[in-house]
Amino acid sequence: MKKQLNIYGIRPVLELIESGQEIDTIFLQKDIHTEWSYEIKEKAKKYKLNLKNVPKYKLNRLTQKNHQGIVAITSIINFQNFENLLVSTFEKGDFPIFLLLDRVTDVRNFGSICRSAESLGVHGIIIPKKGSAKINEITTKSSAGAIYNTNICREDNLIKVIHLAKESGLNIIGCTEKGTKKIYNMNFKQPTLIIIGSEENGITKELLKLCDNTTKIPMLGKTKALNVAVATGIILYEYNRQNL
Amino acid sequence: MKKQLNIYGIRPVLELIESGQEIDTIFLQKDIHTEWSYEIKEKAKKYKLNLKNVPKYKLNRLTQKNHQGIVAITSIINFQNFENLLVSTFEKGDFPIFLLLDRVTDVRNFGSICRSAESLGVHGIIIPKKGSAKINEITTKSSAGAIYNTNICREDNLIKVIHLAKESGLNIIGCTEKGTKKIYNMNFKQPTLIIIGSEENGITKELLKLCDNTTKIPMLGKTKALNVAVATGIILYEYNRQNL
Repeated sequence: MKKQLNIYGIRPVLELIESGQEIDTIFLQKDIHTEWSYEIKEKAKKYKLNLKNVPKYKLNRLTQKNHQGIVAITSIINFQNFENLLVSTFEKGDFPIFLLLDRVTDVRNFGSICRSAESLGVHGIIIPKKGSAKINEITTKSSAGAIYNTNICREDNLIKVIHLAKESGLNIIGCTEKGTKKIYNMNFKQPTLIIIGSEENGITKELLKLCDNTTKIPMLGKTKALNVAVATGIILYEYNRQNL
Repeated sequence: MKKQLNIYGIRPVLELIESGQEIDTIFLQKDIHTEWSYEIKEKAKKYKLNLKNVPKYKLNRLTQKNHQGIVAITSIINFQNFENLLVSTFEKGDFPIFLLLDRVTDVRNFGSICRSAESLGVHGIIIPKKGSAKINEITTKSSAGAIYNTNICREDNLIKVIHLAKESGLNIIGCTEKGTKKIYNMNFKQPTLIIIGSEENGITKELLKLCDNTTKIPMLGKTKALNVAVATGIILYEYNRQNL
């Protein structure tokens, strides 16, 4: 189990970046414009790291030590590469089932989804590098610790991920209230990538276009949608019901 | 029980308005001019509701949570009597499906269960008078407003409730990790009362003894149990899959 660390100071943060360790967020004091601050910005861009320009008092909240205007927070989990994970799943002889979360932002929902995914046999969860829920103490608690046993892939380009999955023979299924098939009529007896949309506005149009099928959970009441973690649990259950 | 509640957030307030519950006042942030704000204004006019345009700091005084620019003040959660509700369900010719929550204490879980129950056609949720989650702002938000469209029975004596349900021909099904049947092998094609246990220690022994059957969701990972709201959603989905 990894622990989240606050790394502060110019040299330690630069070394952290170069070490290739997973970084959750880099906080840079916004009124600093020196050579090293540009170096940090450049490296953050190069390695596609999450960098935020913040006022000094925010950094003071993160550490009471001499932070020199920079604090980096390390990630508590080791992210996987989707392509490698997909290959190793096939190599193990497993029937792949992956979950792609298109901008699920609530930490509790994300934690609960990790818990369901680990419990219900998902091989990996793919999330975008930007616009996804933070992985913090609440996420970990909501996952009941399952986040440490879940393969999570943080990817730049979700469209590329879907194309790769398609080429590898995975059936791409979008879960949306406007889905064409009821989930118990979906054929889950094949390698599958399930796309789950955000709490706010579901699956992005761009990703929806790439789905081989869309599916919905039949709704009987006035409420328009289920909670995203509940809906994900139901779909994974239905997948298992058909395959176990 | 009458209690005034502050309901915040776009979807919860929209659901509240549609539910037909009495609303005292809706406070709308005056500098917001978006699609949803016009929808609120229109609905307020249609249903003759008291709507006030106020600066943001007034909303911040009503709630410290993320109100999204809208707070409604309301009242009245009308608890139902289980016996009456059961009789009226039979009289309507409906096939009864009830949910008994044995000390579910987390407000978010309770809200999420209400949302699933309303969405998935449950006739009523029975909770104990003592030891159950509070119904507050977080419960309401987690339910996405569905709590207003859910019949909730707050009962003193859960044993009495189960005996009454049994006498009325309901099949009493306990959902527990130690359940004897996998849920897709359970027969849900009959009047049913599903018992869900607490987050901490599941169903009380006293209630477990009264179950006609116990059922479990097959688990494939290291995590011992699903989140209680996710598990409840899965059971209600399986119930519907068999009955729709």
